[in-house]
Amino acid sequence: MDIEKLTGKSGEWLRGMGPYGEIVFSSRVRLARNLRERPFPGWAKKEERLEVLRQVREAIDKLPEMAGAYTENMEALTALEKQLLVERHLISREHAAKSAGSAVIISPDQSLGFMINEEDHLRMQAITCGLQLPEVYRTINAADTGLESNLDYAFHPRLGYLTACPTNVGTGMRASAMLHLPALVMGDHISKIINSVNKIGLVVRGLYGEGSEAIGNLFQVSNQTTLGESEEEILQRLEKVILQIIEHERNARQLLILHKAVTLHDQIGRAYGVLSHAHSIASKEALNLLSVIKLGIDLGAFPPSGRLGVDELFIETQPAHLQKGVPSKKMNAEERDTLRATLIRATLSRIPEPEMSKLTPSEPESDQQKHHE
Amino acid sequence: MDIEKLTGKSGEWLRGMGPYGEIVFSSRVRLARNLRERPFPGWAKKEERLEVLRQVREAIDKLPEMAGAYTENMEALTALEKQLLVERHLISREHAAKSAGSAVIISPDQSLGFMINEEDHLRMQAITCGLQLPEVYRTINAADTGLESNLDYAFHPRLGYLTACPTNVGTGMRASAMLHLPALVMGDHISKIINSVNKIGLVVRGLYGEGSEAIGNLFQVSNQTTLGESEEEILQRLEKVILQIIEHERNARQLLILHKAVTLHDQIGRAYGVLSHAHSIASKEALNLLSVIKLGIDLGAFPPSGRLGVDELFIETQPAHLQKGVPSKKMNAEERDTLRATLIRATLSRIPEPEMSKLTPSEPESDQQKHHE
Repeated sequence: MDIEKLTGKSGEWLRGMGPYGEIVFSSRVRLARNLRERPFPGWAKKEERLEVLRQVREAIDKLPEMAGAYTENMEALTALEKQLLVERHLISREHAAKSAGSAVIISPDQSLGFMINEEDHLRMQAITCGLQLPEVYRTINAADTGLESNLDYAFHPRLGYLTACPTNVGTGMRASAMLHLPALVMGDHISKIINSVNKIGLVVRGLYGEGSEAIGNLFQVSNQTTLGESEEEILQRLEKVILQIIEHERNARQLLILHKAVTLHDQIGRAYGVLSHAHSIASKEALNLLSVIKLGIDLGAFPPSGRLGVDELFIETQPAHLQKGVPSKKMNAEERDTLRATLIRATLSRIPEPEMSKLTPSEPESDQQKHHE
Repeated sequence: MDIEKLTGKSGEWLRGMGPYGEIVFSSRVRLARNLRERPFPGWAKKEERLEVLRQVREAIDKLPEMAGAYTENMEALTALEKQLLVERHLISREHAAKSAGSAVIISPDQSLGFMINEEDHLRMQAITCGLQLPEVYRTINAADTGLESNLDYAFHPRLGYLTACPTNVGTGMRASAMLHLPALVMGDHISKIINSVNKIGLVVRGLYGEGSEAIGNLFQVSNQTTLGESEEEILQRLEKVILQIIEHERNARQLLILHKAVTLHDQIGRAYGVLSHAHSIASKEALNLLSVIKLGIDLGAFPPSGRLGVDELFIETQPAHLQKGVPSKKMNAEERDTLRATLIRATLSRIPEPEMSKLTPSEPESDQQKHHE
């Protein structure tokens, strides 16, 4: 399986709407694991890394869910291929910087991924669409259990799983959901929400993880601590907070419709007007406007048939994804901005003009919800 | 004749294209005159102002071209009516602040206007579309000659016409043209042009005269000095410089088409996209985007039939013009922004999508020009 097969289609977590799909893009759980009595990748010699790689890869290959997986050593990947994987959230930016002794393995449906010799010997993640934290945890836990029978994990009876960085010791788990919160941003309530969430030991980040800016009104909410709570407790606490944020976003959307109708119509109209007419557009502006189109679809101004195309643009307009469509030459930023605009215009041409009259306050809960779940 | 008749239709200078009409909005000449041995308005007592007003008005009423004119004492005008006249460039902002003892008289076709007791006893202006400085001068000179037979002007054999402010002494003439220079702005050449023009004793200002910002890529070029040159010399020098600026703007437009096609398509596309979809828009943004639509019409991306509607929006989207359409209530800025967007969407809906393929470099001169002249 080559990288074309991965990038040629949407990841599982982009296809279709999961529960709370109008607000939750995706749910993700990753586990950090290390082999007993082997130096962490940052301290290991090349031969030690290669030996870890061999063992871990062998164990992963035995997992039934990884039949037909995409497997590649990092040194075999071009800079473009690495960036493609980063843009699809399949590897971390840190892992993309790795070379000999590191590898990536991704399941055919892209729902399960493994990074070997990133910061830890093994980082594995499961990802799916919508809010489904227990489900993704079950998936990754099953893979972890399968691996444990063939790998000797570094595990301390009191501390739990040992990791290269102390912040991951314990469960080694980072669970997160990617939330689309345009109404909280428009209504200027987002910093209040971020502050409260930070205070209770959870973290809010932008689209591309640690230190990244919240473009496209996308926010990743994840657990901070990995020690002192079981995986189930962490997931329950996280899910509870996410459900509250969803509630806030839904209220903010209703308030926009009821009390800020002109602003809402204006933002949706302008986003549609610009995206369907621009001939050059930078990534950040594109994501911010696509976010508003997505909100417009959620609220009924555009037909739901437009959703998949718009969601895909969040990934397809990223630099490496644009570059892969033009293998003959290395594009500069200006050329990418032009291609990005062309791609977006093509998708937008299949979405009719916004109908602001359809932006009416929704029934108080449940009906819409049942439909998604 | 009441103000409705003035504001209900386009001024003469907005209707149709004058010479060089794709770049020159309008040409204007104003003369400052005072009556001999009467204190200037700023120093005069109320009775003295009223006496000047009576005399000057009587003289103007005798001019055959002023039959059926709009005549009003400033104290009889509401704040809204005054602002309407300012937005149509029929009176100055300074004159709008005047009350008893001052008056305004405007010819039925709005090409000829008189302010009595502004800074001087009499300020008269002629205005027309396109670049027609000698023609507007002939018009205003004829009116001036007509008045002179009935009014005793303050005139000094060596200095010329005496005025309240020394900067107007001599000819008392300020001639100007309103130029639309979007390509020089896009290409970042405008400040160079403004600097050169300033160096040779001419002045460049924004849309609403002295001290105003150049919104909508509109620049008023006028003579600075009134002393030491005859009217004809001033007009010739001004026209020569304006023709050079026109040449620069035309070259800049061709350069955009040839070398900055993506930027040009992007700006035209976005202007159209935003104006046809915004539900709230401030005056400044509106004028700046309308300027780009105007450029698009000039260059062939839109059919010429859209020109009048777009030109009229430059005036019709100004605050007082919006307010006069809603006599029942005083609108706030937010309500005006909404109404402005609605008005613009309606006009834009009659202009088809831009056709970028029609943006081709034009023949080197003359063909296009002959058409306008």
